[in-house]
Amino acid sequence: MSNPRLSRAAVMPAANAPIEVRDFPRPTLEPGAILLETLFSEVCGTDVHLHHGHLAGVPYPIIPGHVSVVRVAETGGDVLDLDGLPLRPGDVITFLDVHETCGKCWYCTVAKASTRCPSRRVYGITYGAAEGLLGGWSQMIYLKPGVKTLRLPPNLPPQRFIAAGCGLPTSVHAIERADIQLGDNVVIQGSGPVGLNAVILAQLQGAGQVIVVGAPKLRLEIARALGADEVLDIGDYDPAERVARVRELTGGRGADVTIEATGVPAAVREGMQMTRDAGRLVVVGQYTDVGEVAINPHWDLNRKHLEVRGCWGSDFSHFYRGMRVVARYGDRFGWERMISREYSLAEAGQALADVEQLKVVKALIRP
Amino acid sequence: MSNPRLSRAAVMPAANAPIEVRDFPRPTLEPGAILLETLFSEVCGTDVHLHHGHLAGVPYPIIPGHVSVVRVAETGGDVLDLDGLPLRPGDVITFLDVHETCGKCWYCTVAKASTRCPSRRVYGITYGAAEGLLGGWSQMIYLKPGVKTLRLPPNLPPQRFIAAGCGLPTSVHAIERADIQLGDNVVIQGSGPVGLNAVILAQLQGAGQVIVVGAPKLRLEIARALGADEVLDIGDYDPAERVARVRELTGGRGADVTIEATGVPAAVREGMQMTRDAGRLVVVGQYTDVGEVAINPHWDLNRKHLEVRGCWGSDFSHFYRGMRVVARYGDRFGWERMISREYSLAEAGQALADVEQLKVVKALIRP
Amino acid sequence: MSNPRLSRAAVMPAANAPIEVRDFPRPTLEPGAILLETLFSEVCGTDVHLHHGHLAGVPYPIIPGHVSVVRVAETGGDVLDLDGLPLRPGDVITFLDVHETCGKCWYCTVAKASTRCPSRRVYGITYGAAEGLLGGWSQMIYLKPGVKTLRLPPNLPPQRFIAAGCGLPTSVHAIERADIQLGDNVVIQGSGPVGLNAVILAQLQGAGQVIVVGAPKLRLEIARALGADEVLDIGDYDPAERVARVRELTGGRGADVTIEATGVPAAVREGMQMTRDAGRLVVVGQYTDVGEVAINPHWDLNRKHLEVRGCWGSDFSHFYRGMRVVARYGDRFGWERMISREYSLAEAGQALADVEQLKVVKALIRP
Amino acid sequence: MSNPRLSRAAVMPAANAPIEVRDFPRPTLEPGAILLETLFSEVCGTDVHLHHGHLAGVPYPIIPGHVSVVRVAETGGDVLDLDGLPLRPGDVITFLDVHETCGKCWYCTVAKASTRCPSRRVYGITYGAAEGLLGGWSQMIYLKPGVKTLRLPPNLPPQRFIAAGCGLPTSVHAIERADIQLGDNVVIQGSGPVGLNAVILAQLQGAGQVIVVGAPKLRLEIARALGADEVLDIGDYDPAERVARVRELTGGRGADVTIEATGVPAAVREGMQMTRDAGRLVVVGQYTDVGEVAINPHWDLNRKHLEVRGCWGSDFSHFYRGMRVVARYGDRFGWERMISREYSLAEAGQALADVEQLKVVKALIRP
Repeated sequence: MSNPRLSRAAVMPAANAPIEVRDFPRPTLEPGAILLETLFSEVCGTDVHLHHGHLAGVPYPIIPGHVSVVRVAETGGDVLDLDGLPLRPGDVITFLDVHETCGKCWYCTVAKASTRCPSRRVYGITYGAAEGLLGGWSQMIYLKPGVKTLRLPPNLPPQRFIAAGCGLPTSVHAIERADIQLGDNVVIQGSGPVGLNAVILAQLQGAGQVIVVGAPKLRLEIARALGADEVLDIGDYDPAERVARVRELTGGRGADVTIEATGVPAAVREGMQMTRDAGRLVVVGQYTDVGEVAINPHWDLNRKHLEVRGCWGSDFSHFYRGMRVVARYGDRFGWERMISREYSLAEAGQALADVEQLKVVKALIRP
Repeated sequence: MSNPRLSRAAVMPAANAPIEVRDFPRPTLEPGAILLETLFSEVCGTDVHLHHGHLAGVPYPIIPGHVSVVRVAETGGDVLDLDGLPLRPGDVITFLDVHETCGKCWYCTVAKASTRCPSRRVYGITYGAAEGLLGGWSQMIYLKPGVKTLRLPPNLPPQRFIAAGCGLPTSVHAIERADIQLGDNVVIQGSGPVGLNAVILAQLQGAGQVIVVGAPKLRLEIARALGADEVLDIGDYDPAERVARVRELTGGRGADVTIEATGVPAAVREGMQMTRDAGRLVVVGQYTDVGEVAINPHWDLNRKHLEVRGCWGSDFSHFYRGMRVVARYGDRFGWERMISREYSLAEAGQALADVEQLKVVKALIRP
Repeated sequence: MSNPRLSRAAVMPAANAPIEVRDFPRPTLEPGAILLETLFSEVCGTDVHLHHGHLAGVPYPIIPGHVSVVRVAETGGDVLDLDGLPLRPGDVITFLDVHETCGKCWYCTVAKASTRCPSRRVYGITYGAAEGLLGGWSQMIYLKPGVKTLRLPPNLPPQRFIAAGCGLPTSVHAIERADIQLGDNVVIQGSGPVGLNAVILAQLQGAGQVIVVGAPKLRLEIARALGADEVLDIGDYDPAERVARVRELTGGRGADVTIEATGVPAAVREGMQMTRDAGRLVVVGQYTDVGEVAINPHWDLNRKHLEVRGCWGSDFSHFYRGMRVVARYGDRFGWERMISREYSLAEAGQALADVEQLKVVKALIRP
Repeated sequence: MSNPRLSRAAVMPAANAPIEVRDFPRPTLEPGAILLETLFSEVCGTDVHLHHGHLAGVPYPIIPGHVSVVRVAETGGDVLDLDGLPLRPGDVITFLDVHETCGKCWYCTVAKASTRCPSRRVYGITYGAAEGLLGGWSQMIYLKPGVKTLRLPPNLPPQRFIAAGCGLPTSVHAIERADIQLGDNVVIQGSGPVGLNAVILAQLQGAGQVIVVGAPKLRLEIARALGADEVLDIGDYDPAERVARVRELTGGRGADVTIEATGVPAAVREGMQMTRDAGRLVVVGQYTDVGEVAINPHWDLNRKHLEVRGCWGSDFSHFYRGMRVVARYGDRFGWERMISREYSLAEAGQALADVEQLKVVKALIRP
């Protein structure tokens, strides 16, 4: 870092305003906090939504970037990792962006549905730049006391982990909800980072066939490289043909399990129709409100004996399990294939545009 | 029976044609078959749909009546019950109307979703009168070899079991899918036989509160008598008010579990909205196609982390478990409260009309 | 209370030493703490073990009493309940004795098995009297900041809740692990507070038959009054006869689900033998080490396709759900039947002796 | 085949008697039956038990061999596969050795535990040679009407499928019961065919680490080649050291999931001790009664909050799913590594001896 007294960061000043690079003073640490040097952060679809002002209650200006790989620069006294070992300057770690899950409210304790805890805060999304270096598009990140960290194991290169990125814990959660059985036919709707991680994870559940329904070609090629058995380019088929093609590939029945990761409401009904009777559909792609879809409860749900499972956010277990899986199966699947390009802080606006136009799969920010 | 050589039956000659009483010859028995005298059969909502021709592929003329309580008149050789004991003339039994589940197809063996077995046939629905005495609105019923039977235990009066009727196994299946936990807030949408059975069964899962959303007053009064803590007459509230009222009754969160048993597509979205984040909605009321409903996948499914489970038909385990429950908890709940009136065969048309106009809850046919 | 400046408490000075009544100064409150007046506390089997020094690491002298019903005397500033409402002097509440579950360790976050969190502390067991009024056999209890509380609903008399006592959340957890299906045959081994609560809860899962195997007569009579269908006095049958009798009562197959709540190692194998093939046995009665038992893995586990589930402790959800259930079904089951006698602080030693000799079912301490 | 009028078979004349090769007449086919030419059958540990007379009720003389890969020679009229397509002479298929699961008894219909159906019969085990060509150590096999068949997909060589052998469906069932989550530490006790298949399947569940505890070296080397991360030779460690080593490899906690596949009673308690608190142990290796083992219910079950799941037999779904998995992941894992040697019918006795002495992993019979 050129000046250890200052941290440079890319700032989203307001919805629809151009990204700016600004300098921030190096923060002083409260006990239990950690100052981090960012090795890599990423640009995800949520960042595009942030840029367009699609999320409510965002305290612009903000420093985006929720999942990052970082190096410990300084700690506020002894800070321990999950195994009780102290974190030291130089350690390469990552941290769970969603934090302040309270552990006390009704959702945390009775429903055991911590991803619906109302106290949650998210690095890179729900903090304003005025509150500190609380996003990953920055040379330095201030980690508040209690934010959960994980060390990268020695055999896991930072690029590989950030390639999996924030799509990985989301996808781990979706796969957990999907309950794939050995040999199942699995359809994945969507070929963005969540869908591509799901292509890998479905194989790590012993799927008998993985079919990806998505676009554009670039992403479908990567889906293939990651092990998808079949890919359907949505540009080549209309919705009815897609459903027909999935049935054809699955003995006429439809998928045992479908994972919707598209962001398009119509995909939910299409997913119902692509799934066999008594199968399961996980809805994990509807992170913003972009409208409604009509369903027929008789044909799509009741008669079909279908199970539809919404899936929101992720918790530390998904983050932890994702890390274990990338470390164990990294050489086999080569997550880093998903990385299309690295961008500097000054290029962050370009990165956003490229993600929005689907020119890239995974765009890294290297501050 | 006046003439043991003939059996009188009420016949539905065609869709929308008046019910006729006809005489049929007493059948001779193939090995393994049973000739039964009908004590009680029932009229259910499906019979109304049959009468209007809403179901595809029904081989009119038919003898309706799927669930019945009967007395063994004659057996085709030794026929054993589930415990391996022979059935004898005079034994009071019931039988599972849905049969010929094949046990061999992909749905039966791999998916273990036998209610989607394509070979299933149903007494009172998918058999023509020309095929024999294969419906319950008849003095005699011909039970084909292999149809599953259950003896009524001595402490279970026939009226009580038929009061639970075909709504009971359907409701047992729905409750199984609902996975209610001790102390849960449970909403039941619909106050017909399936909904009323669910009022009882939710208490037999230890629900902390049972709220019924239905109509008309007569049925809601019975819901109360069966133990519902709160009833919402849909005539008194518009849909938004119903959702608001359920939230008010559930600490602002919505129901932990909602069971939809209405037959109205709009109820499915309303059910989603009445259910808390990370809760469950079982859709068991959409047995015929009466149209679509729009949902918002972001708010209703994904962000809500909701689980929606379609529930089709029932299998022998639901029938068996239903019988056990009515026998054990019969005195406490008094299922027979649901019986509004008994009708003779000649009155079967009247019974259909009364069911359709919701003048009665449970209409029995006593041939 | 005679002197609000002092709290009288019954103290266990050391293992095997007689209980003494001592006076403690009224504590001053840190922010978030609550000072409570004890309405009722209880004596449970664990207290007998504490008295005999069977538990490791207990910091004698201690004030026993883990579950209590209390009245708020004073709060350290605003202290909110689960619904965000402030607790006020005079409010009748209870609190979860097991606390300091950390929410951060591997067991809390990854395994989601918080009852194995190593940070847990327990009122009345793991605190020394020198640390404060941290047990229920005392006129006043000091509730540390963050200890989870629940208000008693207006329709729930304190006696009824304390009658359910600490056996209730343990039993709720066991029932959750038991996964009883409607109509199941359920055997409960043991007729102490956990077993008797399970008799009720099994009915609130729709069990088709509840069989209790226990002793002495007094407890079995209460089991009957609470709804057990059959009771087997272990004084009347040897182990092989007990297994044979259970089979006889269950169509020759054995119980669908067995809940072991005895404290006797031999009961575990007996429970395996009482359970049908492909059934489930929950082991919740082995809270202290009293030796081994031999099993035959071929006959008792593998060939039987049996599932055995150990069940340790309880979390806030079990406490919360238990409260909901006692409130909703209190009139029906009359938990207070379990109360044999109330004891003053001075009689606490006598209460321990009576519990140990099984002279009473539930012994209350009324300070 | 030299003489299509005769089939040569290896016969086990009685317990402990030498294997003999005998000629049998070519059977005539009843409708629905199939005559098969055996490509490969196998020798499994159960065959060794059969040879020593360890199983009750075996109707010696028998033709052993339960799982085989075969070619259709002739059909008794039209016989359809699972997809409704007719089987033709020349088709390469396999069949589920366990059949006559009745689909009607209490275990089949209510418990849904068909592997405990009392009507089951097993090719190569429960049929006498006098009843026909009902075992795989034979040039021809007579497939009774209704026995479930599966076609080998074109990309699945017969050797690969038979290498997976009868251990595969057993292992699929065990893995289903094991409920491995992404990233879990998995211990597999035993390195025979069931254990080695589990090494593969654990990776197809996304295990984070697979540790095999077994012997001898030959099998452990294959475990490594199939992807095991760590192997512990039981010759190198005593039981306490094995438990200690597993804890060391799992952050001090023990395995998340342990699969016992050894046949040794002591392994069950060792498995309990190797598993972390709130983990799961699947017991699938105790197929014959070889004695008892002492456990401590406090430490091994209750305090540990452990789940122990016995696992008996397999059903068609496990067979079907196993086939799908070998076809999809065959190139990656190379199941055929497990094949040590092919034996002719005349060498069947030698094959049995080699299996018993652990000289081979998988011994094929090529008639």
